[in-house]
Parts: sequence; C-alpha cells; structure tokens
Amino acid sequence: MKSFTEYSALAEQTIRDKKYPGGDIETLYGPIDYALGAGGKRLRPALALMTAEAFGGKAEEAMNAAIGLEIFHNFTLLHDDVMDNSDTRRGRESVHAKWDVNTAILSGDTMLTQATMMVSEVPDEKLRKVLDAFNAMAIKVYEGQRLDMDFESREDVTGEEYVKMIMDKTGALLGASAMIGAMIGGASDEDAARMYDYGMMLGIAFQIQDDWLDVFGDSNTFGKPIGGDINNNKKSFLMLSGLAVEGADGDALREAIKLPAGDMKVKVVTRLYEKMGISDVCKKEIAHYCSKALTALKKIKMSEENKEPFRKLLEKLTGRKK
Amino acid sequence: MKSFTEYSALAEQTIRDKKYPGGDIETLYGPIDYALGAGGKRLRPALALMTAEAFGGKAEEAMNAAIGLEIFHNFTLLHDDVMDNSDTRRGRESVHAKWDVNTAILSGDTMLTQATMMVSEVPDEKLRKVLDAFNAMAIKVYEGQRLDMDFESREDVTGEEYVKMIMDKTGALLGASAMIGAMIGGASDEDAARMYDYGMMLGIAFQIQDDWLDVFGDSNTFGKPIGGDINNNKKSFLMLSGLAVEGADGDALREAIKLPAGDMKVKVVTRLYEKMGISDVCKKEIAHYCSKALTALKKIKMSEENKEPFRKLLEKLTGRKK
Repeated sequence: MKSFTEYSALAEQTIRDKKYPGGDIETLYGPIDYALGAGGKRLRPALALMTAEAFGGKAEEAMNAAIGLEIFHNFTLLHDDVMDNSDTRRGRESVHAKWDVNTAILSGDTMLTQATMMVSEVPDEKLRKVLDAFNAMAIKVYEGQRLDMDFESREDVTGEEYVKMIMDKTGALLGASAMIGAMIGGASDEDAARMYDYGMMLGIAFQIQDDWLDVFGDSNTFGKPIGGDINNNKKSFLMLSGLAVEGADGDALREAIKLPAGDMKVKVVTRLYEKMGISDVCKKEIAHYCSKALTALKKIKMSEENKEPFRKLLEKLTGRKK
Repeated sequence: MKSFTEYSALAEQTIRDKKYPGGDIETLYGPIDYALGAGGKRLRPALALMTAEAFGGKAEEAMNAAIGLEIFHNFTLLHDDVMDNSDTRRGRESVHAKWDVNTAILSGDTMLTQATMMVSEVPDEKLRKVLDAFNAMAIKVYEGQRLDMDFESREDVTGEEYVKMIMDKTGALLGASAMIGAMIGGASDEDAARMYDYGMMLGIAFQIQDDWLDVFGDSNTFGKPIGGDINNNKKSFLMLSGLAVEGADGDALREAIKLPAGDMKVKVVTRLYEKMGISDVCKKEIAHYCSKALTALKKIKMSEENKEPFRKLLEKLTGRKK
C-alpha cells in the first residue's frame, strides 16, 4: 500500500496524461481540460485508489472509476460556480467567468456523462453494483446542492439540517469514492458499506473544516478570498452555530449579517465568532465526525497496517490549512 | 404490434402515473414533474417501445429504458432553453422562465442521472451494451448543441455542416432510442445498428421539418411563436439554404437578416424564402433522408407487417403540422 499523497500523485499524473474521454471540439472540451488541469488534492480518486488497494486490488484496476469520480466532482464545481455566482476556483477564474455560463452548463453536462462512462469501466460482474452506487450518490449530491440553495432564503435553518445537507452535498461523494474503490478491490458488501460510512464521516468533518478555513484560513493557501461565506451570508456551520447563540453576542451577529458585503463585515463577524468561541465549536464537531469515521474503520476486516493511511488521511484533512 | 400512436399513449400514461424516479424535495423534483408533464409526441420512448416489440420483445420490458430516453430528452430541453434564452416550451413557460436558471440547471442535472438510472433498468447481460449506446449518444447530443451555439457567431456555416450538427443534436437520440429498443427486443447487433440508422435519418428529416414549421407552420399547433428562428438569426436549414443562393434574392436575404427582430423581419424573410423556393428545397431534402431511412429499414430482418409502423411514422412526422 502507498500513502494518500502517492495515490493522489498517481491520479494527478493520469489526469495530466489526459487519460479521460475527450473529442476535438475545442469549445466543448477545452473548458473541461482547463477545469481538470487545476490540480487540487485529488481527494476522491486518491481515496478510491487507496481503498481498492487496501482490500487487495490494484490501483490500475480502479483508475478509470477513480478518474470518473474526480470528473464528477469537477462537473459539480462547474455548475455550482454558476449557481453560486462564484468567479474564482482554486485561485483561477471559474469556467463560467473565463468563458460564459452556457459553456459551463454544456461542458459540465458533458463531464457528467464522461464521469459515468469512466466509472462504468469496471469488470462486467461489478458494473451494476458500481453504477448503482454512483447514480445514487449523484442524486444525493443534487439534493444537497438544492437544500443548500434553499437555505439561502430561510432564516430558521438548524445545525442538524446543515449536517444533513453536507452529508448529501459533500459526504455522499466521499462515501461513494471509498465504497466504489472497495467494490473494485473485492471487499464484501458489508465492508464496502462501512467504507461508505468512513468516507461520509470524513466528508462531514472535511466540510466543517472548509467552512472554518473560509473564516480562519490563510488566503494565500486557501485558493479563495477569506470571508467569502460571510459576505454572501452563506449559512455555513460557523454562521449557524453563531446564530444559535442567545443573548447579546448572538444579537450582535444577527445585526452584523445585515451589514453590506466588504472587509468591514468580515472583520466584525470574525470578531464575534472569536468572542463566542465558534472556532472551538467547529473543532469539537470535527472531532466528533472523525471519531465516527474511526469507528466505521474499526469494524472493517482489514489489517491494521492497511487501515493506517485512512487514519492519517483523517488527521491530514482536518488539520489542513487549504 | 401496436401503432406508433398507441406506443406513444403507453409512454404518456407511464409518465402520468409518475413511474419515474423522484424524491420529496419539491424545489428539485417539482420542476421535473412540470417538464415531464408537458405532453408532446413522446417520440423517443414510443420509438423504443415500438422497436422492442417489432423484434419480438414486450413493451413492458423496454418501458423503463424508454422513459429514461424521454427524461434525457427533457433534460436537454431544460438546459437548451437556458442556453438559447427561450422562455416558451410547448406553449408554456420553460422551466428557467417559470422558476429560475439555477433551478433549470440543477433539476436538469438530476434528470440526466435519473435518465441513466432508468436506461440501466435492463437485464444484466444487456446492461453494458445499452449503457454504452446511451452514453455515446449523450456525448453526440452535447457536441451537436455546442456546434449549434458555435454556428451563431459564424457567417460561413455550410448546409453540410448543418446536417452534421443535427445528426448529433437530434439524430443521435432518435437513433439510440430505436437501437436501444432493438437491443432490448433481442435484435442482432447488425439489425440494432440498422435501426440506429433508421432513427438517425428519421431524426434529420424530422429536424428539417421542424425548421420548416418555424417559418411555414401554424402558431396554434406549433407550440412556439412562428418566425422565432428568423428573429434569432438562427442558422436553420432554411436560412442556410437561402444564404447559399447567389444573386439578387440571396443579397436581399443577406440584407434582411440585419433587420431588427419583429413581425416585419419575419414577413420580409418569409417572402424571400417563398420567392427562392426554399420550401421545396426543404421538402426535397426531407424526402432524401426519408428514403435513406427506408433503405436502412429494408435491410433489417423483420416481417413486412412489423416494418409497416416504421414507414407510417416517417410519413407522419414529415407531414406533421406541429
């Protein structure tokens, strides 16, 4: 078994070698190459490769499906950036900003089909299982994105609802990446389901860390401007935790979100988060989901040696600065 | 075997009974129900059902895949209407006009996955073949839509390029509907490929008829305002045929397309089409592709009785008023 970083590098190299479907219509495929060439952690394919090998498979056998999962992820980014009106992605222009909305829609659609094609490149006897897992995951992701958008116009979103939303929007894809890797690696159905739980819990912890970084991260390494969620009045985990606080500090936050977007608003809200100890609330919540991920891992029939990279990945992602 | 109209009614009833995937997030699934409930010819599922039975299968066995093909078609309509900025569809508001662009994007994405799920509901031994045909078709459709958009900013599009574009954008889905129906019905690979050709040629003839209806159709039955293509300077088959005419009439058309959108422009361009005999050019081209469809049909191993509804369908679609 290799380390997460090595699996990530393997996926990166495969994408750089353009081992994914494409064609010669530059206006359709150029934006796809651009989006896939942006680098990033390659978390989803690396997790799929790592899981496949942890169960005794070979990374090559899972590579096409793994790249398919990364293409799916990037398809959602193209469309989400249109829906959220985000002009920046990984420190570069997003596809709709560099080209236009129509390009982001259509190249995104193409990526969803490319993703399905690549995820289907598994042995015939595993096709049904893998495809069903992939499609069920995709539906969850759309539902999560819809809930996220619907939250914007609601004032009564609870922390529980938020977790349900990120389970769908972020957790399901990490869960499916681990599960599909497990299926290809030859895991039992029970262990594949446990790997799904591991990935799901990892995903929730990852997203809360992402929300935290949006406020307390370093803009040089985060790839997005700090405070974006604050300025967009995004109902992040921090915002919902802050709004749930009763009394003077909570009232101050409820007033502060009415401020016009800008550096001032970011400063005021960040200071209130600090005063209310929201950073610690995040860390506690992250630890809670990490512990759930470890519990899922514990139940899996796998050598301790093979489990080790999964534990390290949890630490890495929840301690990350970008 | 039943008639096309009966297969169409079967598909319609299945959609009315909501025998397709869904969930309880109204903001995501409501627009999908709305789009699928708009009626229409149900051409693609009816063609799939008809083909399955023509090869000895049963309509029920092909029903899920057939509905999946209709959902795919409607997914493309949701996204195309955003890209083309069309506010009307089948006499009603399009999804992005009734809700918003984000809803059309996300509910459309959901429909693509729902379509893939339903098309995959075939016996295991046919899954790979059917899924590959479906995905290859989807890629063609995106390429066709991309070419169509790219044509808008080009002045040198030829009639040949136009036909290549509608082969992808319209023909591939009709081809795949017939081919997937054939696969489910138990056709040989050769006959399934011939059914693809039949559907493809039918699709080209159908699209040219559609372009013709946009100018010479009846707005009461067409479901869209007449002259929409003219006002949008759309490079339809009629426009490209007219622009290819040299001399005074062609020059007059090249001037007329610079007119501002409005009833006047539609009248002037329509009169020029009449003067140049563009309607006859269309009819000749339609007859050409109908004849190709019949040639493909002729080669198929199938009783003459079972071939009859396919011949009738050709006549029906190319003689239609809506």
